[in-house]
Amino acid sequence: MTIHHHNHPYMTIHDFHSHSHIGWDNSIEPIAEVDSGQTISYEIVEASGGQFNRQSTAEDVKNVDFSKLNPVAGPIYIKGAEPGDTLEVEMIDFRQLEWGWTAIVPGFGLLADDFPDPAIKIIDLADRKKAEFLPGIDIFLKPFPGTIGVALKEPGNHSIVPPRHNGGNMDIRHLVKGTKLYLPVQVEGALFSIGDTHAAQGDGEVCGTAIEASMEATVRFKLHKGKTIAEPRYEIPGPPTPEADSMGYYVTTGHGPDLYKASQNAIRYMIEHIVDTYGVTDEEAYMLCSIAVDLRISEIVDAPNWLVSAFLPNAIFR
Amino acid sequence: MTIHHHNHPYMTIHDFHSHSHIGWDNSIEPIAEVDSGQTISYEIVEASGGQFNRQSTAEDVKNVDFSKLNPVAGPIYIKGAEPGDTLEVEMIDFRQLEWGWTAIVPGFGLLADDFPDPAIKIIDLADRKKAEFLPGIDIFLKPFPGTIGVALKEPGNHSIVPPRHNGGNMDIRHLVKGTKLYLPVQVEGALFSIGDTHAAQGDGEVCGTAIEASMEATVRFKLHKGKTIAEPRYEIPGPPTPEADSMGYYVTTGHGPDLYKASQNAIRYMIEHIVDTYGVTDEEAYMLCSIAVDLRISEIVDAPNWLVSAFLPNAIFR
Repeated sequence: MTIHHHNHPYMTIHDFHSHSHIGWDNSIEPIAEVDSGQTISYEIVEASGGQFNRQSTAEDVKNVDFSKLNPVAGPIYIKGAEPGDTLEVEMIDFRQLEWGWTAIVPGFGLLADDFPDPAIKIIDLADRKKAEFLPGIDIFLKPFPGTIGVALKEPGNHSIVPPRHNGGNMDIRHLVKGTKLYLPVQVEGALFSIGDTHAAQGDGEVCGTAIEASMEATVRFKLHKGKTIAEPRYEIPGPPTPEADSMGYYVTTGHGPDLYKASQNAIRYMIEHIVDTYGVTDEEAYMLCSIAVDLRISEIVDAPNWLVSAFLPNAIFR
Repeated sequence: MTIHHHNHPYMTIHDFHSHSHIGWDNSIEPIAEVDSGQTISYEIVEASGGQFNRQSTAEDVKNVDFSKLNPVAGPIYIKGAEPGDTLEVEMIDFRQLEWGWTAIVPGFGLLADDFPDPAIKIIDLADRKKAEFLPGIDIFLKPFPGTIGVALKEPGNHSIVPPRHNGGNMDIRHLVKGTKLYLPVQVEGALFSIGDTHAAQGDGEVCGTAIEASMEATVRFKLHKGKTIAEPRYEIPGPPTPEADSMGYYVTTGHGPDLYKASQNAIRYMIEHIVDTYGVTDEEAYMLCSIAVDLRISEIVDAPNWLVSAFLPNAIFR
């Protein structure tokens, strides 16, 4: 254990690997017990669990060990938390380290069938506000935790990949500094864990990865006794994406009875647009969609066809 | 015909009823032939086609004649337009008349099974910027056409209800003044029609109706010869929703393998939140979601569960 200041309202968790786990399992021993009101800082390792570095290549993506992906720090036992309560997690700060990665992992992602080959892009994050994805294309950095949740009440180990009513791998890009997340407590002590930190992502995370980056992350807990919610909720204090919004959007649409297929088509048209307009490769355009393009449901009532819009911010292009 | 200034770059189409049609049918005689560059103003009647008025009640919703719903003005023949071209439609201006309506129509809407009874809310639109939905709840008015498209190449009459690759009843709330819509031309002359004007709507239009309002609408055409797109696209020149964004959002989420069901749950939780917090009825909360709440796809890659977020703007509450 390298936890400092136990029972102090500020606590730092170093040595991520010895304080992390993979999958949700309510039998995992807590790494700390804390009170409502506690602030915790973490040093979180990115979602490959240290398998990638600044020199990683497509070959490394092909050989990645899936069993080591998406480790989360924790669990933290919140004193007094019981099933039926709500755990508020305030996002205090996220400071990414100096590089990140975005990859196409074969078999994974919205267009897995269109992109069978592995690819990876290493992105320099030394500037804290923006990162150059390619010359002339700068991504706004809006760091947040991709995976954040509490243990499930069902025994055994449950895959870390899908989000569930306990939260988990929700990949909600809006959980940045200043927001508050509300999680439905499922077991005594809540057993909170966090990881999979992202430096930037679009709504949808369409290629399956964001700008994955190791990070110093700080959150603060507040327990709401007797407040029951069925699935996670969150609050955003101001405009969600003012930087991306500033110069408007180019938008493609897909329609049909299946929102998933409509989303696939909207992203296919967006890739076509980006390749035609900016002279990048299909793979680069797909990764760019994952880190910068937002999927919105324009209508979900005009049976039998729903419509999905994919929003590309003009402000990322110099 | 009451079309003025034929062959003049500005044209006004009065007498909506004699210049409108219901359904997409490429055999309908054009009401005018125009060149690329033409600006047209319309006096558009709201989506009930005049069946509702300021005194309408739930009983009127129950007795509505479905065959008269969603009339569109047109078609306009664009000279030189051929299949494979793209028709740009610039949204010049939309000025709603002094009232609008939002209704729950039995059998229609994302939560049709939860809301079997008809309901209607008449909304005063005399103030052009905001409208009081209920005391203390003011909706930002962002008028746009819910239905806008070109004729299909397939013969016969095709229902006006679903959007298709020709555009149509897309209910894209972002097609406000200043945006440009791109439609794929399917037949010679394009045969453009427009209607179903909305004074405000959330992304999703979850109860099936927006603030439906008659409107003076002005658009300008530009033909892009030889530019081919598969489905509609659009461009937004600046921040899409600065008014709603200003004070942040309260957000509910739904997850699961089906984006439709995940959206249903996110909206159910939002209705619960609105009823609990603001003391309105379930029906009022559902209608409020339809005119003010935005559905976003947070992630669509963490198999088998996708996650949908429903965004309620804090700025609508006084």
